[in-house]
Amino acid sequence: MTDFQQFTQFYQQRIEQKLAACLVEEAESPEWLHQAMRYSSLGGGKRFRALLVYCCGHACGVSEDDLLDAGACAVELIHAYSLIHDDLPAMDNSDLRRGKPTCHLAFDEATAILAGDALQALAFEVLTTQTAALPAEKRLTMTIELAKACGTRGMAGGQALDLRSGQVNLTLTELIHLHHLKTGALIECSATIGALCANNLSPEKLQAIYSYAHHLGLAFQIKDDMLDVDGDTATLGKPKGIDDINQKTTFVSLLNYQGAQTFLLQEYEQAITALQKVNLVHPQLMNLAKFVINRNS
Amino acid sequence: MTDFQQFTQFYQQRIEQKLAACLVEEAESPEWLHQAMRYSSLGGGKRFRALLVYCCGHACGVSEDDLLDAGACAVELIHAYSLIHDDLPAMDNSDLRRGKPTCHLAFDEATAILAGDALQALAFEVLTTQTAALPAEKRLTMTIELAKACGTRGMAGGQALDLRSGQVNLTLTELIHLHHLKTGALIECSATIGALCANNLSPEKLQAIYSYAHHLGLAFQIKDDMLDVDGDTATLGKPKGIDDINQKTTFVSLLNYQGAQTFLLQEYEQAITALQKVNLVHPQLMNLAKFVINRNS
Repeated sequence: MTDFQQFTQFYQQRIEQKLAACLVEEAESPEWLHQAMRYSSLGGGKRFRALLVYCCGHACGVSEDDLLDAGACAVELIHAYSLIHDDLPAMDNSDLRRGKPTCHLAFDEATAILAGDALQALAFEVLTTQTAALPAEKRLTMTIELAKACGTRGMAGGQALDLRSGQVNLTLTELIHLHHLKTGALIECSATIGALCANNLSPEKLQAIYSYAHHLGLAFQIKDDMLDVDGDTATLGKPKGIDDINQKTTFVSLLNYQGAQTFLLQEYEQAITALQKVNLVHPQLMNLAKFVINRNS
Repeated sequence: MTDFQQFTQFYQQRIEQKLAACLVEEAESPEWLHQAMRYSSLGGGKRFRALLVYCCGHACGVSEDDLLDAGACAVELIHAYSLIHDDLPAMDNSDLRRGKPTCHLAFDEATAILAGDALQALAFEVLTTQTAALPAEKRLTMTIELAKACGTRGMAGGQALDLRSGQVNLTLTELIHLHHLKTGALIECSATIGALCANNLSPEKLQAIYSYAHHLGLAFQIKDDMLDVDGDTATLGKPKGIDDINQKTTFVSLLNYQGAQTFLLQEYEQAITALQKVNLVHPQLMNLAKFVINRNS
């Protein structure tokens, strides 16, 4: 196991523990709602967004992980909520998520809708209540970033576009825009929240972190489309080939597999270049970028 | 028209304008999502939660309505989101809301889910971005209150309980608890947000405002159950008798109509008493309480 694999494993375990602590116990009423929220938030996932919070925090000089936990939990809670709602019958109608039945199948549709709703609220609660060691102005800035990333100019808007993207032949520009909203906005927000935990961060470095996350977010989605072609269902924890079945426009359908690979590497290079320009070449950020382009799930 | 009717009309128009300004324009992509959000947030409603923000703010000494607008918009956006999701086929499966087809009928189910999701995010965005005239600590406190009111110990938890309440015979204590979560928490939050906009508010007065809203929130729900029996569909903007059709436990089914009326007046009295104890007998708060128990829609 490489040092970076050990590093990610350590932080994946940390975020799992922190999430378990901020989610309400299953025994509390309404039990089934709390069960559904824990079912869909705990027990795995790459925790890419949480890793971004930690890595960007570290790169910008944050030495205490305690300062980064709330942000890491908040973005993972938002991500978990978005997956629950995306999987609903009225949306992508998916059966399998992280190797388990989706929330609306394990529970019921109403519970899945409410679990997503409540996870969104919990993300804002955690980000505002568990950041008391930071200045109030920064906590507000983080909250504003998170709210914007979740709205119609972010994740919710991207999902709306994605739902209709199978119906039209998107251009590359439109596809990039769709993914920038659907997944990029929260990824940029994760990096920004991590960076904002640092003291005396220059606007140039904050911008570089944002730019790194911007390109890495796009790379992440290109890789996702490639894995839908050459990954396997067991490793992915979700059915492969689903994009093809749904006749969705993807980076592979537009560029072919090899073209997508070239595009992936271009975005990777741009992510790294953004950091180099401000001398922010931190090993964790380098390794996280490599992880994005080399992952198999 | 009484002075208070003129007062409510003035603030209903004000909140309508403020909401229209903070919702994204319909022409912006994804157009249908922004249309759905405006469709379900604009054009009516009693605006009880917004009125609470203004009235509690005024009672506590806030003289500039500009300070109260963001909070009023935030609670109305949350309320609008909750109505969209409550009306979904997997939830209450309602066809009519505020005299119009529900969001999932006017648009589609996926759009309705996303419109609700995005309205929740927008509420947090508005509350954090449009309160810059207030101290950062207060803005955070308001955001924390809103997040808690929306979560499983508030609105989402209450809706989960409500969905199963037809399946069991609730006791009066259980029914009060359900409504405290489902509608009470946001009503208390509205009053608290209004009060928090004031300078130098004593903890006793803040507690009195909370207590006023607590009892008024319960009175509001008792009245709702009574209107479901003796109101009419056209005035209500939603079908009457729906509780009976759904065999839901209500204050009327538990206490009979006359018993519900007695309970309503008790809660009204307690709301007023809470204010009297700290000499916060402001005419707007008195009139708002009277409005709650006398309304016909």
